[in-house]
This record gives sequence, C-alpha cells and structure tokens, in this order.
Amino acid sequence: MGGKNIGLIGLGVMGQSLALNLQRHGFGVAVFNRTPQKTKEFTSRHPEIMPTYSLEAFVRELDTPRRVLLMLTAGPAVDETIRALTPLLSRGDVVMDGGNSFFQDTERRAQNLEAQGLHFLGIGVSGGEEGALKGPCLMVGGPTEGYGQVSRILTKIAAQADGPCCEYLGPRGAGHYVKMVHNAIEYAIIQIIAEAYDFLTRAGELEISKVREIFDEWNHGELGSFLFEIAVEVLGKMDEEKRVPLVTLVSDRAGQKGTGRWASQNAMDLGVPVPTIDAAVAARNLSAMKDERLNAAKVLGTSRPPTSRFHAGSVESFRAAVEASVIVSYAQGFHLMSRASEHYGYSIPLGKVARIWKGGCIIRAKMLDPITHALETEEPRNLIVSTEFAGRLIPLDPKWREAVKQAKAAGIPIPAINASLDYCDAYRSERLPANIIQALRDRFGAHGYERIDKAGNFHTNWSN
Amino acid sequence: MGGKNIGLIGLGVMGQSLALNLQRHGFGVAVFNRTPQKTKEFTSRHPEIMPTYSLEAFVRELDTPRRVLLMLTAGPAVDETIRALTPLLSRGDVVMDGGNSFFQDTERRAQNLEAQGLHFLGIGVSGGEEGALKGPCLMVGGPTEGYGQVSRILTKIAAQADGPCCEYLGPRGAGHYVKMVHNAIEYAIIQIIAEAYDFLTRAGELEISKVREIFDEWNHGELGSFLFEIAVEVLGKMDEEKRVPLVTLVSDRAGQKGTGRWASQNAMDLGVPVPTIDAAVAARNLSAMKDERLNAAKVLGTSRPPTSRFHAGSVESFRAAVEASVIVSYAQGFHLMSRASEHYGYSIPLGKVARIWKGGCIIRAKMLDPITHALETEEPRNLIVSTEFAGRLIPLDPKWREAVKQAKAAGIPIPAINASLDYCDAYRSERLPANIIQALRDRFGAHGYERIDKAGNFHTNWSN
Repeated sequence: MGGKNIGLIGLGVMGQSLALNLQRHGFGVAVFNRTPQKTKEFTSRHPEIMPTYSLEAFVRELDTPRRVLLMLTAGPAVDETIRALTPLLSRGDVVMDGGNSFFQDTERRAQNLEAQGLHFLGIGVSGGEEGALKGPCLMVGGPTEGYGQVSRILTKIAAQADGPCCEYLGPRGAGHYVKMVHNAIEYAIIQIIAEAYDFLTRAGELEISKVREIFDEWNHGELGSFLFEIAVEVLGKMDEEKRVPLVTLVSDRAGQKGTGRWASQNAMDLGVPVPTIDAAVAARNLSAMKDERLNAAKVLGTSRPPTSRFHAGSVESFRAAVEASVIVSYAQGFHLMSRASEHYGYSIPLGKVARIWKGGCIIRAKMLDPITHALETEEPRNLIVSTEFAGRLIPLDPKWREAVKQAKAAGIPIPAINASLDYCDAYRSERLPANIIQALRDRFGAHGYERIDKAGNFHTNWSN
Repeated sequence: MGGKNIGLIGLGVMGQSLALNLQRHGFGVAVFNRTPQKTKEFTSRHPEIMPTYSLEAFVRELDTPRRVLLMLTAGPAVDETIRALTPLLSRGDVVMDGGNSFFQDTERRAQNLEAQGLHFLGIGVSGGEEGALKGPCLMVGGPTEGYGQVSRILTKIAAQADGPCCEYLGPRGAGHYVKMVHNAIEYAIIQIIAEAYDFLTRAGELEISKVREIFDEWNHGELGSFLFEIAVEVLGKMDEEKRVPLVTLVSDRAGQKGTGRWASQNAMDLGVPVPTIDAAVAARNLSAMKDERLNAAKVLGTSRPPTSRFHAGSVESFRAAVEASVIVSYAQGFHLMSRASEHYGYSIPLGKVARIWKGGCIIRAKMLDPITHALETEEPRNLIVSTEFAGRLIPLDPKWREAVKQAKAAGIPIPAINASLDYCDAYRSERLPANIIQALRDRFGAHGYERIDKAGNFHTNWSN
C-alpha cells in the first residue's frame, strides 16, 4: 500500500478544487469524505483520484511521512476529524488544516498534535473555488519541519506572482492569523466598492452600465485588482428574464462568515485601531436589518435628493476617496499583523505576505507591488507613512475630502470611507483631544492621568 | 454574634465609599480586606464600621440570610474570593458582585453558586467614587429571591431620580450586561465631547476658557448632563504653577479598562451595529500611539490650516452634531441591549434602565427623560425612529452635515460624529448597496444570494 503523495479530507467546493489542482500537478491524491456518496461521485468523474471509504483505508494509501490536508468547515468538524485521524498516524506525519479556522483554535490544535509527535500546519487558503482549482494563495503557519515535508507540493499548486504565492509565515496560528486579516481587508475593500456604487447610483443617479464603465476605468488605473475586475463583471450581468442588471435584483442584506468580525474583535484585544474594518463589519450587520430600515425610511425620510453638485469631477473625487481608503485598509491590516506578530511571537514576514497576496487571493491588486516594495525596503511602522503611500495620500487628500462632503450632502452612508479619512486625520495629529478624555476619566473615576510636562501619574481634585 | 445587615469585601475607592453610604443609611456593616492594614486604617477613621480580619470572622458578624457585597477588581480576585467564601456560607445567603465583571463571568458564577444553594447577584455600580458615596446607580441581575433579600438596602443607598436608581433588570448576567452597555455609551459620549473640543480648539482656534463657556451653554440646553457638567469643571481648572488650563498639560494618550471594548466585541457576536461605540474604542487605541502620530505628523503634515469658514454658526452646527451623535449613541446602546435581552433571555426592562440612568451614573443626562418616555410609551425598535427623537433628528440633520463638512475641511478627526451620521444615513436607507456585496461574494466564493423578486437562494455564473 501507500504511494499517494497526499491525502485530502473533505470534498466541499474547496476540497474538490484543491484535489484536482494537486492531481493536475502530478501528485498522487487519495480522498475521504464523511458521506461516501460524495467521494463516489467525485472520483467517478475524476478516476485518477483515489477514493477511500474509511480513515484506515485513507491512511494506508499515503506515503510516509504522511501528508493529510483537511478541507472542512471551521469548527467542531475539524476537531472531530483530528480526533479520529491522529491515532492512525505515525510520528513525523503532517496534518494540514486548509479551512477558515480561527487562529486560536489552530494554536490549540498545534499544541495537541505536537505533543503527539505530529506536525500541524494551519494554512490560510484564499482564492475561492477558482483559486483553489487554478492556483490559490497559501498562507502557512506551523512547525518548520512540517512545512519542509509539504513545501514542494504547496508551492507547486499555488498561484504564481513573482514566485509561488505560498509562504511559511510563522509558527502555530500564524497562517490562519494572516488569512483572517486578509479577509478583514477584503471586507473593508468590498464595503468601499459598495459605497462608491451607492454614491454613483443614488447621489449621481447613474445607470448601472455607466457605473460599470467607471469601475472598468478605475480598474485600469491604480485601483486595478481582482475585486474591481469582478465588480465590472457583476455589473455587466443581465437578468435574462427581466432584462435588467441582475445586481439590481439582488437582496441588499449582506451575509458574513465571521473572519472580518474576528479581526475587529482581536484588534480590540490587542489595542490596534482598525476602524475601516470595524465599519465594514458594522455595515454588513446594518444591511441585514432590512425591516427596520424600511420603517426608518418612512419615519426619517430616505436619502437626501441627489445633490445638484454631482458632476464629472465628482466621479474623480470619489475615485480618489476609494483609492485612499483602500490604501488605509491595507495599512490597518498590516498594522494589525505587525502588532499581532509581536504579541503572539509569530515573526510574520510582512513583505512576503504582501508578495504572496499578489496572486491567487481575493485581495490581489496592483497596489500590492508598491506595498511589497515599501514593506521590504522601508519597514514603515504604518504603510501610510511610507514614502510611496504618503506620496500618494497627500495629493489624494483634497479630493477625498470633497467626496466625503458630497456624499454627506446627499445623505449617502460612507462609513468605511469616512473611517479611513478620520483614521488618517487622527494618525497624523500630533495632539489629539484624548487629554480631555483623560481629564474626565480622572474627574469621575479617579483613574489618574499623565502630563506632558512632567513624568508620573497624577490625580487632581478638578471640582475645586 | 451576627447583627450586621451586610458585609463588604474589598476596600478600594469604590468599596470604602459604598461602606460609608451603607452605614450612613443606618445599616450595620462589617468589612474585610485582603490586606488587613487597609481595614485597620479605614475603620479607625470610621469606627461605626466593623473591621474583621478573617473571612470566618467576617461571616460570623452577619445576620442570616447573610448579605455579602464584593467590591473587587474584576477578574481572578473575584473567583478566588468566592472560592474562599462560599464554604463558610449557608443556603439562601446572598453574594453580590459590585465590580465591573464581564457579564459572561457573572453567568458562570451565578450558575456555580446557584448549584450550592446560594444567590448570586451581579450588580453594575456606576457613579464613580462620588456616586458610590452619595448614591450610585445600581443595575441588578440575578435570581429574584436573592434580590428580594437585598432590595430594601440597595434601593436606600442608590441615587434618587423619580424613585431609587436601582432596579432588578433580569437573571444571571443581566445587570453586568447593562453596566457594560452603560460604559460603552459613556465611551461614545466622551469621544463626542472630545471631538467637539478638538474642533473648537484646533479648527476654531478658540481659547480653553471660550470652549468652557460654550460647553456651559450647551450644558444648559438639551445636552444637559453630568459629563458636560464635569467637562465645564475640567476646562475651568488651572495649573497653579504654570497658570495655564490644566487640561492642556494632560497627556493625549487615552486609557481604558475594557468595558467599552467588550460591548463592541459582543455587539459583533450578536450582529448588532454599534459603530459609534466601535469608533470611540478605536479612537482611544489610536490616541495611545503617540510616537507613531508624532512621526506621521511630520510625514503627512498636521491638521489643515484653520478653516476660514469657522464662524459663530459653526459652534451651533457643532452643537447640533453633538446632540444628534449623543442621541445615536444612546440608540445604539439600547438597540444592543434589546437584542442581547432576547439572545440571552434577560428580558431587560429598557424603560427602567433609562429611568435609573437618570441618577447616580456617569451618563445621567436630561435626555434620559424623553428616552424613558419613548421606551415606555412606544417601545420603538430603535430610539431614532421614536416620535420624540425622529422629531429631534430631522431638524438637526442639516447642521449636523454642515459640522461634518467643516471638520473634514479642517482635517479634524471626528470618528464618532461621522459614525453616528453614517449610521443614521444607512439605517434610514430603504436600499443599501449590500446587493453588490452579495453579488461579489457569490462571484468569488459561491456564497449564494437572495433576490428581491423571488424567494430562495440563488447562485449565478457571473463571468459568462
């Protein structure tokens, strides 16, 4: 027995695509799925892939040291499968979790498996179905010995962009942490795109086809990216029956799977401000409250009438606002990773993260070239103060403010664009009004305060 | 032995103040503190209060059913004390935690103590040192039988505002949940005050004494509140040595103790948007990054030159922005409590919460009268659609937008005011651009989407 290079458990959309990707690159693949029917269907369509119908049989098909890739729904399914699988494995085998697991679950599992002499890798896989099939971005965390056993395979199946979009990013949960931040940036950018769409359609009263043209133009400039590319596609899709753009028939209640929220929550634990990401999370939650919104529209009045100030220049102002806000979204994400890297002892190579995000993943974008360059040459404490991005933000600034002014005059919600501008305005403030916050906290709660003119902790009787 | 109505453990600032408050109202009080020296000092100054130097002696001094109030730093100290104390207690005794415990810790403790036949009450205590001494606001959660044993005492020591500012708010963690939201609203309002201070001093270049006058005027109108009252005090305090307003010498790095952050994190878990609170949490974190800000000020330039548009009307616009944003802060807090109440089975009486917040606590404000009225007569799904507050927000709207425009032209960060306006603009939007979010998510992740014209879950091949 033996002979297969890798075994894959979990034949969902992502699992099937990865299995085919592995097979296409010449690797021998055995698969297992909890419901046998799925295994049968999949392998009957793809007979080069070896079906197995028990974990024992699955394990027997694998070369040693065995390489097992779990592609399961994050949560209990991962723990259950690990529990059933590990007694069948031997010291030095490698177990990889390619699902969207919470990084702290990965930490726990890494510890448990290491104690059993197994290597556990938490791998963030981005790119959706298409990426998994044609070349995903792979963000790997875990023991370096384990990575050594699989790097040849992973780098081969990954997307290519100045090298394979697969990197070892640090111990334990580092890979899933980076994936969480990837998704949070994705939330932010998607929200920014949605705000531009909202402004152009509601304040500008533009047709969808016109918005599509505008996005297409933007996609050919600094905003060139997978997300703008597919936004152009999405806006071009017609509903065949009703002969209207399909997007106008899609419900305006957004869903989410949790990774954006996790990043916001974790950032608060670490004390790192990521307000653009927070705003994107809140905006999705707000969109879900459709009944309440319908009622509020009646009570409070819907959006203000389209502003008479909307003109050709408004589109360029908004483009600038979008570009600046996207820069800030990346900046907040990298800032968070940099703090987390210290806090959790990950030593995440931020330049490599930016480099592998250039291919395969959802947030791949032209902008990641200068981001990689800035991170690798300057190691800035925040991307927005790097030579490259400070140099971009300064000229964008007046148009960005103009866009905010127009959107607010028109009553269009732009929480992510606003949060991004406020972030910059606060971040570049030598003095913030936190002095009055501290004074108030000392007044009512005797919390004490520091002074700018002497060292120490002070308390004052403010009411005398 | 016995004879004391209540025992108090933990002689920090809050514990001492509450002990004196209890004693002043004629209750017999025994106290215990981990370090005996503090007990000795405190009771030598206040000989009517009974010192004890072991938990055994402490318990012996109490009438049965015993009433024990813990005033400890939230966290392990509470668990350790409970562990040492409970073996000494008898069935039907009442243990109260008056610290800032996380509501889920309270849930866990309530369950453990109930299993031992003890009643555990989690009590949110607000008002700081002064409130604890003269009359705090008490937000009680736990078993009703337990509350029955202590309500006479608690209602007597509480602040009075149309009745005692003490109410039973629901089982288990309900009291600490409400306290957490209280503190989150407090974060939001303090941030809004700080933004007004920042705008008036930086964009308007007003002297602190002038800002103090303006805040004093605001405090006599709809914004009348404890926080504005103490803001006026704080701005009036001079540094005796340097002969400048003391607030200008206070460091602009804000601290926090966690409750605001907990509320934001929990709101994300429950899917409730509280962006103004999120923005206040992020703003404190951003203020703490002083070194980075100093660097960024050099690279990106500090705030824009004071806007020439600043004039007498700007002050009134900002007042309107502050009033509207404060309304929205309360609205988000009550919205969160309403969802949490369902989710955790608390059945929180929201009108009563607003009523007891009228006295003793940090966010007591004139505005809580109409809030109480709206909650009790209309039960609105969100305060901003109640007759009273919709009626206020609509006329404030144009000035609010004007204030945002001026602050953004001047480069002043106003994250909480902006988040509040964007919240309203989104909440009153019949249609939000979440349709493009859902379309994009279906395009790259096959997440599926709903339609507005037919039921079901759809998936489209968007690229064809």
